Amino acid sequence: TADSYLGEVKGVLVSTAPGATLIDITHQVPPGDVRAGQFLLDRVWRGFPRGTVHFVVVDPGVGTARRAIAAEAEGSLFVATDTGLLSPLPPPPETKFVALPVPETAAPTFHGRDVFAPAAARLAGGVLLEQLGRPITDPYRSPLPSPRFDGVGWTGEVLYIDRFGTLVTNLPAERVEPGVRIRVGGTDVGPLRRTFGDVERGQLVAFAGSGGSVEVAVRDGSAARLLGVGGGAEVRA
Amino acid sequence: TADSYLGEVKGVLVSTAPGATLIDITHQVPPGDVRAGQFLLDRVWRGFPRGTVHFVVVDPGVGTARRAIAAEAEGSLFVATDTGLLSPLPPPPETKFVALPVPETAAPTFHGRDVFAPAAARLAGGVLLEQLGRPITDPYRSPLPSPRFDGVGWTGEVLYIDRFGTLVTNLPAERVEPGVRIRVGGTDVGPLRRTFGDVERGQLVAFAGSGGSVEVAVRDGSAARLLGVGGGAEVRA
Amino acid sequence: TADSYLGEVKGVLVSTAPGATLIDITHQVPPGDVRAGQFLLDRVWRGFPRGTVHFVVVDPGVGTARRAIAAEAEGSLFVATDTGLLSPLPPPPETKFVALPVPETAAPTFHGRDVFAPAAARLAGGVLLEQLGRPITDPYRSPLPSPRFDGVGWTGEVLYIDRFGTLVTNLPAERVEPGVRIRVGGTDVGPLRRTFGDVERGQLVAFAGSGGSVEVAVRDGSAARLLGVGGGAEVRA
Repeated sequence: TADSYLGEVKGVLVSTAPGATLIDITHQVPPGDVRAGQFLLDRVWRGFPRGTVHFVVVDPGVGTARRAIAAEAEGSLFVATDTGLLSPLPPPPETKFVALPVPETAAPTFHGRDVFAPAAARLAGGVLLEQLGRPITDPYRSPLPSPRFDGVGWTGEVLYIDRFGTLVTNLPAERVEPGVRIRVGGTDVGPLRRTFGDVERGQLVAFAGSGGSVEVAVRDGSAARLLGVGGGAEVRA
Repeated sequence: TADSYLGEVKGVLVSTAPGATLIDITHQVPPGDVRAGQFLLDRVWRGFPRGTVHFVVVDPGVGTARRAIAAEAEGSLFVATDTGLLSPLPPPPETKFVALPVPETAAPTFHGRDVFAPAAARLAGGVLLEQLGRPITDPYRSPLPSPRFDGVGWTGEVLYIDRFGTLVTNLPAERVEPGVRIRVGGTDVGPLRRTFGDVERGQLVAFAGSGGSVEVAVRDGSAARLLGVGGGAEVRA
Repeated sequence: TADSYLGEVKGVLVSTAPGATLIDITHQVPPGDVRAGQFLLDRVWRGFPRGTVHFVVVDPGVGTARRAIAAEAEGSLFVATDTGLLSPLPPPPETKFVALPVPETAAPTFHGRDVFAPAAARLAGGVLLEQLGRPITDPYRSPLPSPRFDGVGWTGEVLYIDRFGTLVTNLPAERVEPGVRIRVGGTDVGPLRRTFGDVERGQLVAFAGSGGSVEVAVRDGSAARLLGVGGGAEVRA
């Protein structure tokens, strides 16, 4: 949002789809962090009405070879780099995918403006997915890691760290038995509690997060900083 | 805006109130800083048309016990945490307040999505305040501090520091006699001037700010940094 | 976006022009950096439909003497500080300019709310440029620097550094002969390549940017940091 890029994309969108409403979700996915982009899409897309076009561009190697794709799942539409970003959607054929043509005139470093924005605007204007490109059945998929159950307990990992320093894991909170203690790296953070109001300030607390998975936080503090862990850290329950 | 939370809230809003227009004011109130939230609401809300629904959530202890409320003042509508945020509105009964029910299924850590967004969307869709919850007459009120006049001069304080480092005080500029000198902490910053074009670069200057109160700035610099003061610092005139 | 200022401006806009759509381009032009504002406007404005009103306020000396202006070019409309911001537009008479009256009641430090927002809203509502103020033919112009050709090669400079640390120059990429090497300061960054996928990670690369001029980047890194250069640095081709 500091540069002209977002403005240029919005210009294409409102010029091509004059009646459409633009809604900013986030422009702060760390450059190239496909996993964060996937996580955020996963949390957000089903909350929007059918027919919404989601613009999801995270490019770990802008200008390098990768396809531009569009998709339709459960009546929602997507344009995205083929970098695994759409892995949270059901696999084909439940989700339909097409490869978007990249015109000769597209700036190699700015497919957002020259490829994705025109495609998103056409979808918003009622053009059918099939009219945008040729169908594909092999979108690049790199799903977020799943937790494992070994007969005794669950092992998963930290998927995302939010701006409060809360660790969002992939452990399904409803599968954790009452009283079972949660461990992050080597640290016992106690059993699942209802919310972080249940511990004192500065204390670690595990709870069922708003997305349904186990989260680990410090009340009025940062669990990421206190525990010194990042994305991918092991979590057990 | 870096996480999925804002996107999830907007999803509820556009799904529940499809015709509504969303306008972002700020998502940068420091976490838990109710006073800054109050100050910003105070400056902004009367500028919007009657019927606007203001979404004002600042939670110093997310997930701890506090009510969720909605209000109506001068034809404008509000949903907010009952943390003193709505103290800039006239007190009841001039402002009508209701307590919002919190459904069992609401995520304890995300009332923004599960309590406030649905209520805001229903208000935007024409549902009456009274239909959202039971009336209350005791919203938590913690008004911004008022200045005192001791017969000789005014004593007030710094309410807010903007991103330029300008100190926004609670001293009413129109009550300061011409020529009276302004002091912040122990520093004399001179009489009220028209604007900071009236001093040299790097110099301190006091003037009537755009909100009507005395402000203290450094031309092309930061008064907060130069004076080493923060919110709550004493100001005299 | 951290303070109340943007919210106050938006309040005026939606109150005065109820049907208008607000689109945020950027609120992160460094305070007072007219050249960055000019560069961003230049990249963005033609992408929006005719009739769009562009709100362009960058004030190196808020509250000091400078005119408030409005303009019309190629069917697009502008309100701006008369600080050179509109220099990317064609000169008069191709672009029409008017000086906006500044009411006595306008806060000297907040023309954005009290002068520019009302004018922008009136233009959005269909009021003609000529009705907003008296015509002027001498807007302050400080165009971005042009590159020079000395018979052997081009000499230009870095106009802008984006958030990835990429150097955007004023050298027209299509005028650089194939194979000619680009130099920034004293460093040879090689000939123009198609995109930064054409070099290894961490390597410098020059290419034709999305705006048509030569850009210099580091793949997965920051050219500004690697080369230690800023805006105004000399570039040769």
